[in-house]
Amino acid sequence: MAEKITKRHADPALAEARRGQILIAAADCFRRKGYHGAGMAEISKTAEMSAGHIYNYFASKEAIIEAIIERDMEEMFSIFQQFEDHPDDLVSVMTEGADEGVEHSMDKEQGALQLEMLAEAARNPKVAFLLQQSDTHARDKMRRLLTGERSLIKDVTDKELDGRINVLFAMFGGLLLRTTLYPELQKDTILLALKPALRTLLMPF
Amino acid sequence: MAEKITKRHADPALAEARRGQILIAAADCFRRKGYHGAGMAEISKTAEMSAGHIYNYFASKEAIIEAIIERDMEEMFSIFQQFEDHPDDLVSVMTEGADEGVEHSMDKEQGALQLEMLAEAARNPKVAFLLQQSDTHARDKMRRLLTGERSLIKDVTDKELDGRINVLFAMFGGLLLRTTLYPELQKDTILLALKPALRTLLMPF
Repeated sequence: MAEKITKRHADPALAEARRGQILIAAADCFRRKGYHGAGMAEISKTAEMSAGHIYNYFASKEAIIEAIIERDMEEMFSIFQQFEDHPDDLVSVMTEGADEGVEHSMDKEQGALQLEMLAEAARNPKVAFLLQQSDTHARDKMRRLLTGERSLIKDVTDKELDGRINVLFAMFGGLLLRTTLYPELQKDTILLALKPALRTLLMPF
Repeated sequence: MAEKITKRHADPALAEARRGQILIAAADCFRRKGYHGAGMAEISKTAEMSAGHIYNYFASKEAIIEAIIERDMEEMFSIFQQFEDHPDDLVSVMTEGADEGVEHSMDKEQGALQLEMLAEAARNPKVAFLLQQSDTHARDKMRRLLTGERSLIKDVTDKELDGRINVLFAMFGGLLLRTTLYPELQKDTILLALKPALRTLLMPF
């Protein structure tokens, strides 16, 4: 977890807003210049804050990317949480919730940043570690969901469960490649075919 | 299509070998430094050829990435061609052929380069154009396959067909994200769940 250096600030809400402002500026720089190519000077210029001021919130560029990954994870988990809190069976809840997942996966700005981080992971072990750690949490959450009472596949083997989760994640994650390669692609076109495939992955084979 | 500057060479086989050598070196540089960060000097050093010699084969770094994208496309099309040439029904042929597709999508070196090119597409309209053009060809090929005589879904609407093709491509393409985020993931684990999902996408809903 990225250690939040907010204790020095008298106003926590203001500190949170400043952190948000830096994360937005950094995301913009990483997309434009690549993680590698975007320095703290560039980020500070884009955020319209002095580099010294930024260091009050983030100790390094790595702390910034850590916070971005954490924020993405929280967003994904809030979607998962809706599934968990819902009283209906998991197949209907997740099939209906697919719209939001597809929307999230097809967000172009978000996608470009995600691709930049994944490409950087091939070069930068620290970034790879952070992304892999976040993915492990996501798989754990999904595993708990799929082995819960309301799941129709709670009794499949661990290996099959792992396969299902990974194909599920590949299908949604792959949408970020689709929007890059085929920008005209519409969400409802995807949903036509994604929902039946999703149903297959959530029911006994 | 990348114009091949091979006419000056007396020996076409040697020219092809040299081109291959440059592409391998360039792919290596793009992975390590990013497309943006890898200059012709770096590529020439890695290929152990003078920059002047490289320019005999490729007019620019863009011509190199164009050739890499073309080579990838040819590889994918050779997999598609096997499906086309096979006399059996498309569902069994493609489900059995899934192994090769998964292997291709989970190749880590290939994947890192693919991610680098996709990330670069967000910054570089020329790279975006080349990738999108290659993707359009791939969708066209798949559309012909799925509307052919041996397909069980040849009569679905264009929109539904587009949805199916894109979820299919998302699922396979997304595997390159999976190997980056979860390097221990095994091919046979994926196939356990991918085959049933693939079958769903190739049969009437």
